[in-house]
Amino acid sequence: MVRPDAPFLAACRGERADHVPVWFMRQAGRSLPEYREVRGPGSILDAIRDPERAAEITLQPVRRYGVDAAVLFNDIVAPLAAIGAGVELTQGTGPTLEKPFRSVDDLARLRSLEPETDMPYVAETIRILVRELGDVPLIGFAGGPFTLASYLIEGGPSRSHTKTKAMMYGDPALFTAILDRLADIAITFLRSQVAAGASAIQLFDSWAGALTPSAYETFVLPASRRILSALEDLDVPRIHFGVGTGTLLELMAAAGADVVGVDWRVPLDDARRRLGPDTAVQGNLDPGVCLAPWEVLATEARDVLARNAGRPGHVFNLGHGVLPETDPDALARLVDLVHAEGRTDGPHLTAGEG
Amino acid sequence: MVRPDAPFLAACRGERADHVPVWFMRQAGRSLPEYREVRGPGSILDAIRDPERAAEITLQPVRRYGVDAAVLFNDIVAPLAAIGAGVELTQGTGPTLEKPFRSVDDLARLRSLEPETDMPYVAETIRILVRELGDVPLIGFAGGPFTLASYLIEGGPSRSHTKTKAMMYGDPALFTAILDRLADIAITFLRSQVAAGASAIQLFDSWAGALTPSAYETFVLPASRRILSALEDLDVPRIHFGVGTGTLLELMAAAGADVVGVDWRVPLDDARRRLGPDTAVQGNLDPGVCLAPWEVLATEARDVLARNAGRPGHVFNLGHGVLPETDPDALARLVDLVHAEGRTDGPHLTAGEG
Repeated sequence: MVRPDAPFLAACRGERADHVPVWFMRQAGRSLPEYREVRGPGSILDAIRDPERAAEITLQPVRRYGVDAAVLFNDIVAPLAAIGAGVELTQGTGPTLEKPFRSVDDLARLRSLEPETDMPYVAETIRILVRELGDVPLIGFAGGPFTLASYLIEGGPSRSHTKTKAMMYGDPALFTAILDRLADIAITFLRSQVAAGASAIQLFDSWAGALTPSAYETFVLPASRRILSALEDLDVPRIHFGVGTGTLLELMAAAGADVVGVDWRVPLDDARRRLGPDTAVQGNLDPGVCLAPWEVLATEARDVLARNAGRPGHVFNLGHGVLPETDPDALARLVDLVHAEGRTDGPHLTAGEG
Repeated sequence: MVRPDAPFLAACRGERADHVPVWFMRQAGRSLPEYREVRGPGSILDAIRDPERAAEITLQPVRRYGVDAAVLFNDIVAPLAAIGAGVELTQGTGPTLEKPFRSVDDLARLRSLEPETDMPYVAETIRILVRELGDVPLIGFAGGPFTLASYLIEGGPSRSHTKTKAMMYGDPALFTAILDRLADIAITFLRSQVAAGASAIQLFDSWAGALTPSAYETFVLPASRRILSALEDLDVPRIHFGVGTGTLLELMAAAGADVVGVDWRVPLDDARRRLGPDTAVQGNLDPGVCLAPWEVLATEARDVLARNAGRPGHVFNLGHGVLPETDPDALARLVDLVHAEGRTDGPHLTAGEG
């Protein structure tokens, strides 16, 4: 049973915790030998659709590292695949679409998600996890509107998001309609994860950092705000994350996040100064540092802790997902260091107390 | 003959100009039909090694758009290929190395550049260009130390720069030695371009934005500072550019830049406030906006001009290179708009007057 004073949940609410909590984006996955053992061949969707296997993969890093939160083994495009939007997930490539989104006719491919019939295995996985995790909170998640729209419109991963921006600027009505449907799907998906037992959620708008602040505010923020507002009554922490979002942090907080994910490009002291006392932060060690010798990794991790300077409302994490080349032993030592040396001794933030 | 009061040069020095100058990174290249006509098959290096062809490609966008500067048709890895470092350039892939840099033995592959014998075609191209360009300044360039090191260490383009960071943090002596040699090569390459007739230079450290500010300051800034300082006596504007460098702008200026390139993620008014009155700026329209309908493109271009607010020391550009899908007519109209509507009516910056 997860207690409300679990360090991860307390930190998300901006409250002092027994220790600085830590988890890692992509803590389950390719960097773990035990993952490669149970993952099986075929699409990652096969593993996601198998509750026992998905739960086992979710649990592996909790067992190995003693992290303060589990994150559901799933994928941000899984709900889109489940409603038949035409998204494929092949190993090593990321999401692809044979027919990328081009016109208003494609909107029909984004019907409402019905979790009980489209993805019954998710609730089943979460029910197993809640039982197995005991007092460790489970984080559910969904893809953010810009990131999912980019996959749909580009037809795959993109560096420049050219077609996405062309539609955003050239046919804002269609772009907005796509984001609106993606927001509806995210709301339904996230609410169903919380209903099944997730204790917190993260909205991964990983590629939102490709936009100017003004484009983000005009075209993306309304959809993100709608998603995060629609979860308010559930009273679970809402984390909002993107990569390269150094100029978007305030807007991502304004979307209704309790916790803003910060990548390594923004020093954490700057991020906290900019976000102010009402918003907790998550981050922000460069994942590349985890490939360094232990002394360097330890120094850099201590620098992150020092920049937070004991303020409550810090969830330690990497600035993006664990790199596949990462040595699991390095992450294990990192968790121990954060637990041993991370302190929150400042006053509570006001965020969770309103 | 280039006059010192050419708008591009005046703006680089922070002085008022007759109009806001504009050029585009990758203005020569795949977006132009006349380029595809003369480019020829084979490696881009073949075109670079042919002075008549390289000059023609450099001139094409000047003729078509009436931009305020030409930029030498070349590639940041061309000097590395010329000294036999083992870099290949195949169309569509970017730079690749069959044997990426791994150990101290690889340092031998970075011998000194001797422009007259290694790349005689560059000076020859520039001599043709100086004759043909008349009063339009020519920008020479070189790759920045982090960006070139990343290609050498990764063996090709990379999103996460994993191996580069692993070496940077794990074997800083080797990493620094690589950057030192790359700095020497850049100095020689840039000085030879100016000697042949280039009126300004740009240091493209395109991927430096992958680093934390503190890693940039420790591992990259010393090499970049050495490059830019070594050009000081030449008295040509030095532009320092990277993508996603929103948290590095002050450091990139401190490296010794007269002009800092700003990508679209940082609003130009913020960039100017942060960089202060001694540094000119170049940018910063999102290249993706060039695929939008004209009204949108015009509005966004006007927003860039408005954020600069008439301050001298603004070179209009995109925040990164022209996307291959861009309609040349859109860029032609954009140049006309900047020339017609861009005004500098504030006092001179102090930068060029010291």
